[in-house]
Amino acid sequence: MYFTTPQEFTHRELAPGVKTRLAFGEKLNISVVELEPHSVVPRHHHPHEQMGFVASGEVEMGIGGEARVLRKGDAYLVPSDVEHSARTFAATAVVVDIFSPPREDYR
Amino acid sequence: MYFTTPQEFTHRELAPGVKTRLAFGEKLNISVVELEPHSVVPRHHHPHEQMGFVASGEVEMGIGGEARVLRKGDAYLVPSDVEHSARTFAATAVVVDIFSPPREDYR
Repeated sequence: MYFTTPQEFTHRELAPGVKTRLAFGEKLNISVVELEPHSVVPRHHHPHEQMGFVASGEVEMGIGGEARVLRKGDAYLVPSDVEHSARTFAATAVVVDIFSPPREDYR
Repeated sequence: MYFTTPQEFTHRELAPGVKTRLAFGEKLNISVVELEPHSVVPRHHHPHEQMGFVASGEVEMGIGGEARVLRKGDAYLVPSDVEHSARTFAATAVVVDIFSPPREDYR
């Protein structure tokens, strides 16, 4: 199956106010995450490599010992097993996360 | 280096009128591709698995024996070594492509 409409994405809630829509390949997956205002993705880690960028809004990302406020177009890389977290401010934000290998735990 | 601003992305021209900005991890990479009106990415293939989605505009994607016109939010999966192509119509389009393993040929 080469094509997926937004309606066919898998839906998951990652944390209160943090919802994602996922599409899966064999080696990677996409996760389009909408974070409500003042929502928090608590510090966590996983063996999957993660990259992402901010599609809209503003997000504070903590990765390893660093933290930065990211805006539209800013990208980030979370290497395997490095702890990371995210939080929003007064506005909704959308980030696009990608993972390799795919997050089978979200399939 | 955990964070990348849009200015730090690597720039490449994939075909006439088709420009991309890339960020790289170890296992995957992101490619934000802007396609001018009436531009064409000729049929090609590569061993890297590719997924992507349309961020804005309209793109006709051909993958294997299928072709479909994709709009904002529509996603696609190009398995390893499957032939694929893309073309735009009267408007500019932006697609987000991701690859695993990363496209070292574009680094």
